[in-house]
Amino acid sequence: MVDGIFDSDYITLLAGGTAPGRRLVLLDSGVPQVWRDRVVAYFSRYGVRAHVVVVPGGEPCKEGRVLWQILDELRRFGLDRRNEPVIVIGGGAVLDVGGFAASIYRRGVPYLRVPTTLLAYVDASVGIKTGINLAGSKNLVGAFRPPIGVVLDRSFFTSLSDAQLSIGLGEVLKLGVGTDRLTFDLLDRYADRVLRERFQDRDGAQLLSRSVEVMLHELAGDLYEDELCRSVDLGHTFSQPFEMRDDPLPHGHAVAVDVLISCVLANERCLFTDAELARVLNVMQRLRMPLAPRRFAFEGIWDSLLDRVQHRGGFQRVPLPERIGSCVFVNDVSPHELGHTVTRVCSFAFAEVEWADDAV
Amino acid sequence: MVDGIFDSDYITLLAGGTAPGRRLVLLDSGVPQVWRDRVVAYFSRYGVRAHVVVVPGGEPCKEGRVLWQILDELRRFGLDRRNEPVIVIGGGAVLDVGGFAASIYRRGVPYLRVPTTLLAYVDASVGIKTGINLAGSKNLVGAFRPPIGVVLDRSFFTSLSDAQLSIGLGEVLKLGVGTDRLTFDLLDRYADRVLRERFQDRDGAQLLSRSVEVMLHELAGDLYEDELCRSVDLGHTFSQPFEMRDDPLPHGHAVAVDVLISCVLANERCLFTDAELARVLNVMQRLRMPLAPRRFAFEGIWDSLLDRVQHRGGFQRVPLPERIGSCVFVNDVSPHELGHTVTRVCSFAFAEVEWADDAV
Repeated sequence: MVDGIFDSDYITLLAGGTAPGRRLVLLDSGVPQVWRDRVVAYFSRYGVRAHVVVVPGGEPCKEGRVLWQILDELRRFGLDRRNEPVIVIGGGAVLDVGGFAASIYRRGVPYLRVPTTLLAYVDASVGIKTGINLAGSKNLVGAFRPPIGVVLDRSFFTSLSDAQLSIGLGEVLKLGVGTDRLTFDLLDRYADRVLRERFQDRDGAQLLSRSVEVMLHELAGDLYEDELCRSVDLGHTFSQPFEMRDDPLPHGHAVAVDVLISCVLANERCLFTDAELARVLNVMQRLRMPLAPRRFAFEGIWDSLLDRVQHRGGFQRVPLPERIGSCVFVNDVSPHELGHTVTRVCSFAFAEVEWADDAV
Repeated sequence: MVDGIFDSDYITLLAGGTAPGRRLVLLDSGVPQVWRDRVVAYFSRYGVRAHVVVVPGGEPCKEGRVLWQILDELRRFGLDRRNEPVIVIGGGAVLDVGGFAASIYRRGVPYLRVPTTLLAYVDASVGIKTGINLAGSKNLVGAFRPPIGVVLDRSFFTSLSDAQLSIGLGEVLKLGVGTDRLTFDLLDRYADRVLRERFQDRDGAQLLSRSVEVMLHELAGDLYEDELCRSVDLGHTFSQPFEMRDDPLPHGHAVAVDVLISCVLANERCLFTDAELARVLNVMQRLRMPLAPRRFAFEGIWDSLLDRVQHRGGFQRVPLPERIGSCVFVNDVSPHELGHTVTRVCSFAFAEVEWADDAV
């Protein structure tokens, strides 16, 4: 973690390649112009010509057409297989599709990840997963392939909107509720100051470094997901329909809603106390997170769970918090139980759920 | 290696999955109907429902559109991430695109390879490479991912055409000339009987098993191509333009022509004797291999070498036989030298080469 990667004499961005030389830079269209200029200036200071390719940011870029365009850019650049790491700078979606392109071009070329959003910083930057969506299913196509480096610079966050900060905090909430109580406590303490301080202060730095450490610790022993019961999967069981529709919730907010559904399920099963549930609700509201999407179909949530069963080797393995900071895994969630839970979540949020005639 | 995988009580085809259960089978359109029926009958004997998806065979199937169709078939099948290995049955191109789809679907699901052509048997079946072509460049996009098993059954070869046998022998020739003298001697001895016996006799079996052993031995220590000087790359330096044009040579024949170009280059450099060159030419003619494509542009051959430089980390690393069964690697082939060599190869083959105005 560094502050000001493009200002300092910081050289990790040059890792794994030749200097003087050239680099292909995949840059998220959401990154403000001032940062783009700094990237080019940074590289030219070391005699490296940066060929910048702007990739449209956000979830829609995670599809075959954009992947193919990026692969074709690598081909036209004539990228060397070993000595010209691809530099991917952006939010989670651009890191995912750019990392995937680098993972399969010439069966894998080196790449560096530079997350520019909070969500990407605490989530996509950690681990070795890359991927795109297929026919409405998230990350159905992808690769496990580590970047040669990850450059974490929280000064990017000064340019983020309030909404982007709130969205990124969805993954931090997930970690706090399901995996690490200290993360939750730090988040609770910092919740009222996030939008003012934007992680440029000491408490913000502490919350960030704790989150990344916890993610690293959870993933380190299981990079290829041999273990299918993973507490970091909290928030990723029911969330698919919220972000794969025409009027989508951003990923971090979809995760937060899923965390809330999981907390209520756990509460109904007497795993999670009313006081803990109230505390989660309170933090979510102070972080300006939605408590449910405004309108949604129950069937989509159930189908999302069924898709996870395929992904988790034939079992539900639904992570449920048993208290703040710890999870158990259950395999017996029924449509009836889930329907009851969803109704209760809607009562917090004034949301409307559509029920198919034969559902529940 | 077995004879008659679908007749016997041979159960490797069931490996890695549940039985009773179901399997998705990707089947090369070039495989005769009789084999398709045997596949379905085989699986149903074990209570496994085989969902057969026919993939158009041959090099043109190695492209994004076909890859996406296969990925969509996996999605619609609802393939389990762990317990339903994809069975890929076919020639090298179908093994490559099918294996690549399995390598990236859900970031990798298990798959089994069943080569049905001689070329696939001695080449694509060995190793862990999968891939497709991009904009005229061979295997520019792909993955390193091992199948959970490879089923080698030479009884498929009874259904192959004479041309398919000759094509497959191109990779055997490459191994013999560049890596293993015994393979070359066995090939020389068997050359006049190949089309009659089709590897169903003992000498044929010996030639096959020696070829596969040599390939395995060469690849075993270097599955991910950390070593870029590879004698098994002989035949894969100049060959791209011969197989990536409108009227292409099949892969094995393109490799054979490349081997001949390499032998002549080596001969001009006094690495390879006239007698050895004559022996290679003699074997190629008895195996009904072309000695050059009928018409081609010199520039394409030079560009193919330049592409290999990108692939081989910035150096040519051209494998040249220094005698039959052994290679050296050179980095100093010039357009002039290559042009001279190509002219000499054309004199063997009555082929015509087109020279760009500024070439050589």
